[in-house]
Amino acid sequence: MPNKPSIKLGLIQHAAPVGATREQNLAKAVAMIRDAASQGAQLIATQELFTASYFPQVQDESRFDLAEEIPGPTSTTLCALAKELGVEITASLFEKRAPGVYHNTSLMIGHTGQIVGQYRKMHIPDDPRFYEKYYFTPGDAPAPAPGLAPATASHQVNTRPNAEPKRSEDSATRAQPHGFAVQHMRHATTGMLVCWDQWFPEAARLTAMRGAEILFYPTAIGWHKEEADDENQRQRESWQIIQRSHAIANGVFVAAINRVGTEDDLTFWGSSFVVDPGGQVIAQASADKEEVLIAECDLSLIEQTRRGWPFLRDRRVDAYTGLLQRMIDRD
Amino acid sequence: MPNKPSIKLGLIQHAAPVGATREQNLAKAVAMIRDAASQGAQLIATQELFTASYFPQVQDESRFDLAEEIPGPTSTTLCALAKELGVEITASLFEKRAPGVYHNTSLMIGHTGQIVGQYRKMHIPDDPRFYEKYYFTPGDAPAPAPGLAPATASHQVNTRPNAEPKRSEDSATRAQPHGFAVQHMRHATTGMLVCWDQWFPEAARLTAMRGAEILFYPTAIGWHKEEADDENQRQRESWQIIQRSHAIANGVFVAAINRVGTEDDLTFWGSSFVVDPGGQVIAQASADKEEVLIAECDLSLIEQTRRGWPFLRDRRVDAYTGLLQRMIDRD
Repeated sequence: MPNKPSIKLGLIQHAAPVGATREQNLAKAVAMIRDAASQGAQLIATQELFTASYFPQVQDESRFDLAEEIPGPTSTTLCALAKELGVEITASLFEKRAPGVYHNTSLMIGHTGQIVGQYRKMHIPDDPRFYEKYYFTPGDAPAPAPGLAPATASHQVNTRPNAEPKRSEDSATRAQPHGFAVQHMRHATTGMLVCWDQWFPEAARLTAMRGAEILFYPTAIGWHKEEADDENQRQRESWQIIQRSHAIANGVFVAAINRVGTEDDLTFWGSSFVVDPGGQVIAQASADKEEVLIAECDLSLIEQTRRGWPFLRDRRVDAYTGLLQRMIDRD
Repeated sequence: MPNKPSIKLGLIQHAAPVGATREQNLAKAVAMIRDAASQGAQLIATQELFTASYFPQVQDESRFDLAEEIPGPTSTTLCALAKELGVEITASLFEKRAPGVYHNTSLMIGHTGQIVGQYRKMHIPDDPRFYEKYYFTPGDAPAPAPGLAPATASHQVNTRPNAEPKRSEDSATRAQPHGFAVQHMRHATTGMLVCWDQWFPEAARLTAMRGAEILFYPTAIGWHKEEADDENQRQRESWQIIQRSHAIANGVFVAAINRVGTEDDLTFWGSSFVVDPGGQVIAQASADKEEVLIAECDLSLIEQTRRGWPFLRDRRVDAYTGLLQRMIDRD
């Protein structure tokens, strides 16, 4: 078995209380990222939309003011931090792409302080207290492929972070981030997905098929105050099971990062975790405390696991065209 | 919420010891099916290849003699039993389709004693002690669709079991069973998948997209005698998690039926179970005993669950063409 390196991840789980400013939330995250780096984390991940309380609980036009352009103040701070600490950071931001066009976006920042990947959340939820279809334009699909031909372009910057930067960070010519993509980082190839994406096996599969070794799911998921306690426990269990299933089906690591704390009607359940390619939870945070969760990922487990259960060998790609439909109606 | 009926399932978990004849295994299954029916089961499911020990442990040409044509002795016995008891039966058989062409096939038998559905295992495993690629031709793919157009034909008999039979059972003109299909039965719409299929989210998704409310996974999975105990427990856990994930992702019931007992180097871990659309295990058999597992499935939970977590609403069918590839190679 070829010798693959390990990578140490740091997951940043914290509260972002109603009323706290972006500067306050960012300062907290920066301190926790420093803590993670001091513990040896090489790639550090924030929770979803970490600079604000979970604002989609209500539809309020003024909340679009929370969005930032990319590059913008938060990304600039994080790029400088990554360079200073020599770590990679994946961060979840509310992106202003154009007036009236906003995205729920993940960035990947290399250890030289450059943005090297950008992913716009593809699957957008919408239900009471999670009005995301109001705020977030869905991520663009890859350019249409001719017939059944593959979507060949990666639609994403694949600049090796070690490469010499061609321009300054503020004018980086990042390709448009369309669809499911990967980032070839120093220690691992990563995939960034966001929250609701975690319920769709298609998203995990497509990202793994591009070569992702670790899937990140920054998340904002919690319990409504009117729900029964046993229903709450079931929901959290389902949330973990579906993400463990992506690790199993694809033979990859999965890292989920969720917030904690009560914001209006929702109590976010934290419980950030990391799963190995066999589906085992190798690190797990509490449901209610701010925590820096450190997890060492032995990347050689990917090939070892896939040799033992070679699912990717046996996919019936000749029989999957129905997946491109919404439903398959009865004849 | 519309009022949907419930259905009572019966899962038949038993040993099929090395040396036992087809007649002996069939007699045992028949007795257990009678038991299930006497407990009120309306749809009764066998484990994978229930009439024999798990013969793919070795490659042995003479073992093709175990295959039967369909209709054949076993299906004829089961059709008569279904009619006598007024129950529906889904049974897993080693099918002889033509000399040199054998399939791992599930049948659906209506309560009038007719075969109303047939599914040939699409994903075929092959690893030490599971030499299935030697024995089983993969199930046919649906006919190629023009461009990205849907695979419209169901490729499967959808005769309502209540309809007047047009011919005698032995000459039933079943359509060729190609790809992932469903059966519209008296109390529920079902999908039959088989064992290795359970590791592929694509199979569950396609079957659910056709309208399946319950997915059946007859299975033969066990521990090799040389594996460590903790690894064994991890494997069984992964096996349950991946199937629970199909229930969650698709909002359907899932029923897995596995054998028990030691056959040569393998000890099959039983643990047959039924999961509701929220991913909760509602019935679970032991790891080592022969059991008739009864589970009442409240089909109204399907719509209730899907309204709460409407994943099927939000699939990004415009961005999934990559799923038709084997892998997506690096640009």
